[in-house]
Amino acid sequence: MIRLATSVLALAIGCWSAAAAADTLIDNIQGITVDEDGKIDNFTGLVIGDDGRIREVLDRRDKRPRDIDFQVDGEGRFVIPGMIDSHLHVMGLGFAAITLDLSDTNSLEEAQARIAEYAAANPGRRWIMGRGWNQVKWGLDRFPTAAELDAVVADRPVWLERVDGHAGWANSAAMRIAGVTEATADPAGGRIERIAGTRKPAGVFVDAATDLIAAKVPAPRPADRDLALQKAQEILLRNGVTAAADMGTTIEDWQSYRRAGDGGWLKVRIMAYAAGTGAMELIAGSRPSPWLYDDKLRLNGVKIYLDGALGSRGAWLKRPYADDPDNTGLPLLTGSQLRNLMSRAALDKFQIAVHAIGDAANGEVLSAIDELAGTYEGDRRWRIEHAQIVDPADIAKFGEHGIVASMQPVHQTSDRLMAEARLDPARLEGAYAWKSIADAGATLVFGSDAPVESPDPFAGLAAAFTRQGADGQPFGGWRPEEAVTRERALAAFTSDGAYAAFAEGRFGRLIEGERADFVMIDRDPLLATPDELRATRVLETWVGGERYYLAANESEDAPGNTSAR
Amino acid sequence: MIRLATSVLALAIGCWSAAAAADTLIDNIQGITVDEDGKIDNFTGLVIGDDGRIREVLDRRDKRPRDIDFQVDGEGRFVIPGMIDSHLHVMGLGFAAITLDLSDTNSLEEAQARIAEYAAANPGRRWIMGRGWNQVKWGLDRFPTAAELDAVVADRPVWLERVDGHAGWANSAAMRIAGVTEATADPAGGRIERIAGTRKPAGVFVDAATDLIAAKVPAPRPADRDLALQKAQEILLRNGVTAAADMGTTIEDWQSYRRAGDGGWLKVRIMAYAAGTGAMELIAGSRPSPWLYDDKLRLNGVKIYLDGALGSRGAWLKRPYADDPDNTGLPLLTGSQLRNLMSRAALDKFQIAVHAIGDAANGEVLSAIDELAGTYEGDRRWRIEHAQIVDPADIAKFGEHGIVASMQPVHQTSDRLMAEARLDPARLEGAYAWKSIADAGATLVFGSDAPVESPDPFAGLAAAFTRQGADGQPFGGWRPEEAVTRERALAAFTSDGAYAAFAEGRFGRLIEGERADFVMIDRDPLLATPDELRATRVLETWVGGERYYLAANESEDAPGNTSAR
Repeated sequence: MIRLATSVLALAIGCWSAAAAADTLIDNIQGITVDEDGKIDNFTGLVIGDDGRIREVLDRRDKRPRDIDFQVDGEGRFVIPGMIDSHLHVMGLGFAAITLDLSDTNSLEEAQARIAEYAAANPGRRWIMGRGWNQVKWGLDRFPTAAELDAVVADRPVWLERVDGHAGWANSAAMRIAGVTEATADPAGGRIERIAGTRKPAGVFVDAATDLIAAKVPAPRPADRDLALQKAQEILLRNGVTAAADMGTTIEDWQSYRRAGDGGWLKVRIMAYAAGTGAMELIAGSRPSPWLYDDKLRLNGVKIYLDGALGSRGAWLKRPYADDPDNTGLPLLTGSQLRNLMSRAALDKFQIAVHAIGDAANGEVLSAIDELAGTYEGDRRWRIEHAQIVDPADIAKFGEHGIVASMQPVHQTSDRLMAEARLDPARLEGAYAWKSIADAGATLVFGSDAPVESPDPFAGLAAAFTRQGADGQPFGGWRPEEAVTRERALAAFTSDGAYAAFAEGRFGRLIEGERADFVMIDRDPLLATPDELRATRVLETWVGGERYYLAANESEDAPGNTSAR
Repeated sequence: MIRLATSVLALAIGCWSAAAAADTLIDNIQGITVDEDGKIDNFTGLVIGDDGRIREVLDRRDKRPRDIDFQVDGEGRFVIPGMIDSHLHVMGLGFAAITLDLSDTNSLEEAQARIAEYAAANPGRRWIMGRGWNQVKWGLDRFPTAAELDAVVADRPVWLERVDGHAGWANSAAMRIAGVTEATADPAGGRIERIAGTRKPAGVFVDAATDLIAAKVPAPRPADRDLALQKAQEILLRNGVTAAADMGTTIEDWQSYRRAGDGGWLKVRIMAYAAGTGAMELIAGSRPSPWLYDDKLRLNGVKIYLDGALGSRGAWLKRPYADDPDNTGLPLLTGSQLRNLMSRAALDKFQIAVHAIGDAANGEVLSAIDELAGTYEGDRRWRIEHAQIVDPADIAKFGEHGIVASMQPVHQTSDRLMAEARLDPARLEGAYAWKSIADAGATLVFGSDAPVESPDPFAGLAAAFTRQGADGQPFGGWRPEEAVTRERALAAFTSDGAYAAFAEGRFGRLIEGERADFVMIDRDPLLATPDELRATRVLETWVGGERYYLAANESEDAPGNTSAR
């Protein structure tokens, strides 16, 4: 009341410029961003308005604003744009995280204890689901039994997949629900383990017999889905990922995203690509959705699968697999089916993302784009997902029609030995050819394919410029000529990831006017050794000016964080 | 600039009270609302803030605010709360409106002209769909033919239902798509009309044979759905309806509502009741949705069908139909199925709306509510939809557990002769028993069941206090002891309709703080004769402070409307 006039004036200013009175200053940082020209730019402070957008990017000599509500002293730490993962499965990541993982158990007893603990911690789950057990690792010379599961969980069905996915372990409740009894015959292609000397099912089901139980597992309930979404967001934020291209969004996934948006708990930005044109139409109608919830969610387009994966020899190749001479893999769609789906989506201005792993698949998508680009003009940003094995003769075509190559650096390091087995060395010239594809003129963007790989983008960055795995192998890098610079890798995980999802100008760079999505880390990603980079500690993750992740021993009360309120 | 200090002060006030600078004044009106005690209250002016809420309700002697941006001079006309239709089918209403209606054609030639005109006006529709033709009315002694349709529309399939729904008329394109040829046999229970002396299908399909074509009609595309929603909103607004309980919302319906909300073209408030528990879960998850888009949309609960309708003898009766002594109708669910569905929804706090027409169905829902109310405590507002035929012995039960009786006045006037045929007079004591049910203590709310009946709420109001049809029949009203007062009828179409959908305090009354949803009409609904009331002209319809409907010869530039900007 003493300062009435000033208060009134402050309020008035608040009216003209709604956020001035609620700015946040992130100061004393070593800021790194890709700028509007694709170059690296540095800064030492950020001013964030209460609309969650960057109001000012400050250099060392810039004057700091005086009316700041909340101030963070970065103590010289590094700040980079929030990482954008251009290819992952948000709900898959979340479900993997809330499913019991037995892969690191070393004995049946340890597994039993883990199962009991999980069941106790999840009283609301109607089925206990898990994976990863391996009786060989446990030192058992037999499969485990239903009775051994009943001993720890008898009140609810339990169904646990073996590490290889080729067998499952059920308790008696699960078998009862599935109606499996002595009278149940082994299905074609499958085997029901029986108690020695009897017909009584023992609890383990092999290959096709797993369906006897798996088919009875109820679809997840909305509460399960929401929990998975929450977990996925936690994991992404902990890894410094603030935006994710969700590849294969179902209506159920979308409804979870909307519940999160409506309920105010959508934290990570989701650029969704529907699981097929049916889901696309049901989710968004006859146009991509608007950006919803302050740019947190949009249905951009559709994900279309053209082939399978290399490991299972489902990738569609121009010539047979080196280790399977009668097999070239298979396209999942005919040429006209592919074009029809692409046309249907393109007609309604949806963005198209085609999964193509093998060189035949990539060649086919490139042809299809070339044919359709004349009809569906304008800024389409045709995406090819994975683009793992490309015929060198086709690489130049990535430079046409504004194609986006959405690739996953860690796949290269995980898959290289398998790829060498599947293909002759001569056919690996266009394999994981990040640099050649980018140099051809494609927009190169990076992702993790989580939960297939870890969503950690720093592992991706390290692979991107070294072509080496976390073990440092192979020495000098695998086909190192396809490595990209750190700067290009950072762009592929930030600004170019935004562009690939029509989000440029909204987020992806730390420049005035964009959403304040950033990560505070403990080392310089442009200078750290690959090993150091992989060990990067994410200290804080901010999305739209909100700090959604703070590393455990970073505290609100730490000297570096002061509130001006 | 001259008045800086004042401007600053004004801005500062603007900050505290964001809408003060953008108020709307509706003045010089004869305002009528149901007040918080359920009594009629009168007023002469409304001040609406720019948040779309009522800021002030003014009496004649109240001072008018000076800073008003937009002012409407009501010129003494009547203003009532926006009407709430507590039972209709929003998308059904819209689709009916965009489907070709031939019911008023008097010759084949007239019908052909109408079809050609409709096809030309709807170039984007893949199928031309229509209904209502009647060759008898046309003076034809035969069915029309495919060739006669081809003569006006040959480029697209055409499928037109006969007025009774028991036959359909296809053109050649439709028959081609359906694969109907000379070789197609008549299905059981159906007949394909043939060209005399040949096996060639003539174009008309009777009873079960209609499925041969109908099954090929593609599901509406999102653009069709959005058009239907737009039309439904236009119709409702034109009728003075500002909020609608949508009974049987599918995921496709919901997605249209969300597109409208996201795109800023959702005008009518929709309180949705999902088409079954599956749709409920998919739409909202494990709790009713929040109120979205400034109280424009909420998934409240689930619609459950317990029986059919009286006309088709599908309503479930305690004793056989008078005109079908072996038939009592049938429940669509067993007692335990009903209770299971209700429990599943109630467990997750969804509101439950059960369709019950016959006295057995009503008795069964009342029992189920009585049994479940102990388990699912709190404010549940169990809804019984229609409640048409109630055993007088059961009426008192409507007063328990806070039951909402959602009834449709016009059904009584349309159905009375049919009801008398179906049931003995003695069994009509509890038929359309609005007053008895309300007096028992239920919350009585009214709706139209559009598109089954017209959505015009003034016809509903007139029926409610007269028990007479638009023709004034029967003299003195049908079972006039069940008429309600005009005041109670108005509450059932406004404030109580809001309560029935958990919307009280948000809209439904014209009192300070509620959304400014109101209708300007040309006569006094509390004094007009029934005939006058049915002829009410809706002049303006406002939702949330936005005028979404202005009658054709009312103009923005009319002397009564002045903008202060």
